[in-house]
Amino acid sequence: MENQIFELQYAIDTFYFLICGALVMWMAAGFAMLESGLVRAKNTTEILTKNVALFAVACTMYMICGYHFMYDGGYFLSGVTTVAGMDDGAIAQVLADSAENGFDGDSVYSGASDFFFQVVFVATAMSIVSGAVAERMKLWAFLAFAVVMTGVIYPVEGGWTWGGKEVPLFGALNYSDYAGSGIVHMAGAAAALAGVILLGARKGKYGPNGEVNAIPGANLPLATLGMFILWMGWFGFNGGSTLKLGGVAVANEVANVFLNTNAAAAGGLIAALAVARIIFGKADLTMALNGALAGLVAITAEPADPSPLAATLIGAVGGIIVVFSILALDKLKIDDPVGAISVHGVVGFFGVMVVPITDGDASFLGQLGGAAVIFCWVFVTSLIVWAVLKAAMGIRVTEEEEFDGVDLAECGMEAYPEFTTK
Amino acid sequence: MENQIFELQYAIDTFYFLICGALVMWMAAGFAMLESGLVRAKNTTEILTKNVALFAVACTMYMICGYHFMYDGGYFLSGVTTVAGMDDGAIAQVLADSAENGFDGDSVYSGASDFFFQVVFVATAMSIVSGAVAERMKLWAFLAFAVVMTGVIYPVEGGWTWGGKEVPLFGALNYSDYAGSGIVHMAGAAAALAGVILLGARKGKYGPNGEVNAIPGANLPLATLGMFILWMGWFGFNGGSTLKLGGVAVANEVANVFLNTNAAAAGGLIAALAVARIIFGKADLTMALNGALAGLVAITAEPADPSPLAATLIGAVGGIIVVFSILALDKLKIDDPVGAISVHGVVGFFGVMVVPITDGDASFLGQLGGAAVIFCWVFVTSLIVWAVLKAAMGIRVTEEEEFDGVDLAECGMEAYPEFTTK
Amino acid sequence: MENQIFELQYAIDTFYFLICGALVMWMAAGFAMLESGLVRAKNTTEILTKNVALFAVACTMYMICGYHFMYDGGYFLSGVTTVAGMDDGAIAQVLADSAENGFDGDSVYSGASDFFFQVVFVATAMSIVSGAVAERMKLWAFLAFAVVMTGVIYPVEGGWTWGGKEVPLFGALNYSDYAGSGIVHMAGAAAALAGVILLGARKGKYGPNGEVNAIPGANLPLATLGMFILWMGWFGFNGGSTLKLGGVAVANEVANVFLNTNAAAAGGLIAALAVARIIFGKADLTMALNGALAGLVAITAEPADPSPLAATLIGAVGGIIVVFSILALDKLKIDDPVGAISVHGVVGFFGVMVVPITDGDASFLGQLGGAAVIFCWVFVTSLIVWAVLKAAMGIRVTEEEEFDGVDLAECGMEAYPEFTTK
Repeated sequence: MENQIFELQYAIDTFYFLICGALVMWMAAGFAMLESGLVRAKNTTEILTKNVALFAVACTMYMICGYHFMYDGGYFLSGVTTVAGMDDGAIAQVLADSAENGFDGDSVYSGASDFFFQVVFVATAMSIVSGAVAERMKLWAFLAFAVVMTGVIYPVEGGWTWGGKEVPLFGALNYSDYAGSGIVHMAGAAAALAGVILLGARKGKYGPNGEVNAIPGANLPLATLGMFILWMGWFGFNGGSTLKLGGVAVANEVANVFLNTNAAAAGGLIAALAVARIIFGKADLTMALNGALAGLVAITAEPADPSPLAATLIGAVGGIIVVFSILALDKLKIDDPVGAISVHGVVGFFGVMVVPITDGDASFLGQLGGAAVIFCWVFVTSLIVWAVLKAAMGIRVTEEEEFDGVDLAECGMEAYPEFTTK
Repeated sequence: MENQIFELQYAIDTFYFLICGALVMWMAAGFAMLESGLVRAKNTTEILTKNVALFAVACTMYMICGYHFMYDGGYFLSGVTTVAGMDDGAIAQVLADSAENGFDGDSVYSGASDFFFQVVFVATAMSIVSGAVAERMKLWAFLAFAVVMTGVIYPVEGGWTWGGKEVPLFGALNYSDYAGSGIVHMAGAAAALAGVILLGARKGKYGPNGEVNAIPGANLPLATLGMFILWMGWFGFNGGSTLKLGGVAVANEVANVFLNTNAAAAGGLIAALAVARIIFGKADLTMALNGALAGLVAITAEPADPSPLAATLIGAVGGIIVVFSILALDKLKIDDPVGAISVHGVVGFFGVMVVPITDGDASFLGQLGGAAVIFCWVFVTSLIVWAVLKAAMGIRVTEEEEFDGVDLAECGMEAYPEFTTK
Repeated sequence: MENQIFELQYAIDTFYFLICGALVMWMAAGFAMLESGLVRAKNTTEILTKNVALFAVACTMYMICGYHFMYDGGYFLSGVTTVAGMDDGAIAQVLADSAENGFDGDSVYSGASDFFFQVVFVATAMSIVSGAVAERMKLWAFLAFAVVMTGVIYPVEGGWTWGGKEVPLFGALNYSDYAGSGIVHMAGAAAALAGVILLGARKGKYGPNGEVNAIPGANLPLATLGMFILWMGWFGFNGGSTLKLGGVAVANEVANVFLNTNAAAAGGLIAALAVARIIFGKADLTMALNGALAGLVAITAEPADPSPLAATLIGAVGGIIVVFSILALDKLKIDDPVGAISVHGVVGFFGVMVVPITDGDASFLGQLGGAAVIFCWVFVTSLIVWAVLKAAMGIRVTEEEEFDGVDLAECGMEAYPEFTTK
């Protein structure tokens, strides 16, 4: 009967992982809708193509080598064999342990479910990049970068943090990042920032006398839908990061994570809406959307420990930061059409730094050090890859293609052929 | 080992609650898409902003005081502390009970998962309002109302019904409302009706000689998507309302709820499509969408007991009612751009009244009394709040702003800047 | 305590089924978005109406008679009584078995959850048809066909395969089709093909000198969203087809199914994008979307056994096939506006035939025979039904209606009244 209980535990934990993974996969649709809603009509087909293709590339590259670099897989081409579940020895071990201590501390689940959950995280990191470089980057150069980012750059830093790979100095930092404010979100933003610097701003974004020209998105319902999809998917992103479900203590923790994730998004949305109202005098929808996402990013580094009120406030600070960050980046002429660097990078860093307030095991210095290592690794390696791509094939479309829209140049089809008049 | 089984039970019931809650949260996206598809392009950004902001406001207000008003939380600012799971005493009690009787009657789950499930219900009630007052209500007045509705008005009646707060006369009614046809949907519609009455109809909706002018929605694929999202989310809305999963009897009940919820939506859609075909001579998509939603609202008060065929028929009657209700409200010059009052209010009342047919414990008189109490409470308090807001800050935009579209006046940005030509 | 474990097992397996069913229901939204994105604006309301109505018809007809034809339900009007769970005898039997062998081989779940899961499959088969006949088929003729298809044609062949109905010769084939590459997808495509042949191509699709004119879809973000929804829903479609969850072996299998389903979609997308790049010189978004769907269809007949790499390759071959199939059908002047016959039919057949490579129990001859039986049954009966409908009420709109768009003729409303200028 002991065995039967174990079988159930295994089934539940695996099921939980798979459902959370499916929710994270759904975030890919969220990024695609958010980004295609915030670009101009003439660049919509291309950003959609980038979003669907990067997801497919991420899944494939992580299978080929990324999982190996991140975890001690012991094999190069991860996908050649069916990913094994726990073998009989491991199961016997868990059974023996639990006979003494109960199940509550053990993670028991299929190896394939772990792979599935991890693979959709890689895609999330890469999705962050596509928004920031929108409306002027070449599609195939972007996908070439995606191959390196999802196959090597992200998995290597993921190995230092979540993968348990031994990195002497890094290990001493005791860096704590529950679901990846830094490991996933800031990492994606660092890669994006490197690309944006080499790429330059869109034509007409910044005027000769320091003007910042608004370039409105073509389809705000899509952008709103994208935000809601991301909000929903984030329950899987943060919730699944307990890596198990079974047992009272862990179930309580998972429930806190769901509750706090929701609270932080709400706090971020309200704060950004209010701040934008004060600054611009209007109810700025795009700031509200970015505020919600900022709240989600901010809570991601520690969604289990804070009280719901604290989670709301952490999210709210994220929502305030994102408004000022978007304005500041425009001052610096860092052109990020969807605000991805602010949402995932600046607020991701904030999320990492706020952990010690509610988690006594983390320190500000350790968090700062960890964030610095992640940022430097991803930024520098990305800069090198972007530079190589720029030299080898060019990363920016021609001025004429940019004027006409990258949809025609890159994809040969318009996203809304009947709606726009030129 | 007894303990291990309990741990698993706790994990499953909590997980079940969280997944259902995530599905209900997803309904917020459904309302946003439905409403933004059914208004004109010039009012789209504003309705999106209202939808995202009301959800955030609902989550925050329910945490601050709503949960306290609805349940015996024993504290005012619900969110200050981490919501506790069951304590050791409660767990020991359940273990003792189940040793005698088996687990099947016990609800064991994290308190935070309960909070999460309840908080998304509040948002649903409020989402109903935004559609009915669309295209002419001031954004900030609407959000001010949302604060009171989600913080006080809904939680108070929720406390009388689901919260187990003792209300002497109300308790005698034995009011039965499984997932809230009356408690959530009719309540939301009552608040909307009060607002619409004080607000008046959109300019041009009703002609001087009694004409009713159709004002077509700008984006029907969005409206259709919204309906599908609501249909999907409703599985969580009704399914989660068992408040537990574990055990044969409850699992059978939950499965019936899923099946009947689906069947009622199908019945409502077909009936509304057929009735509209007979009346208008065309296959009216918006009536079909409202018919599906009406089917869902109709079955919500008792989704477990009916046979699938009965559920289909209950949904179908809901779908028929909604068509005639929409026509009738237009006769009365009650201008509801998306049909929310008909779908959630009129059909919600029908759903409450149909319970005694399949549930012997409920009586028509008790249901009528319960519905009357809920309606009166929400309608009267809402009317007062709307009236105060009208006096204090105004609830309607100026005629010029309405003509130009509330997007520019309230949000300063168009939803589709490249698609529409003025 | 044995009993308590059984109760939990029953709850988990039922819950698993219901969640997978909700994901498959969500695919209906995916088809609706995909198809409405790929047709012209003037035919959008109608395709949306078809999509929502066919889902409702499928749910209702399957309840009335389809479930009976497919499984030995023993009653005609399936929905009259609440669908029973396992009765006490069956439960006692499972308990006795599991006392000896452990739970792992037993499926224990609510009958209603099985019905719910099966009913959404029927709708999937029917959704395939609507895309292929888009932009020129009469709405009511289509819905009349839906009644027969979902009430009889599909359930009968489903009875031969999954229903365990005894069919002497068919049984000898040992036909293997895990989640229905042939039983669902190729079947839907066969019905579509029969309709398209009787219906003819859209006006202007094929020129007098053999030209194939591209008719671009009006809204590519919607089409992309539809693809993502289908991808997500497919986890339920394939994952739920294990028909149970509890236990280590089955949980491992389910995890493999999720992982392989994802990998195959990724492989199909990349392959189609690359092949289209080579042929057309552009990054063709619609081919990429169809490539992902082709990958999903290809893996559906056996998603559990292949390694992730094999799944990626199977998906990739599906993605390559779909590009050439779409081109080939246009050569044959078989006009399929969304590519449904290629994605679900041609690649569905490929999926069936590839099973023996990873599953030793299946044979190429048996798979070929099974696919032939399914195709012939569905194609011939569909052809008869379409022919009867053509004679009785006509299946094609008038030339003038087609020119003006079927939205006005059939539904009396435009999908985007403010965006398009005629």
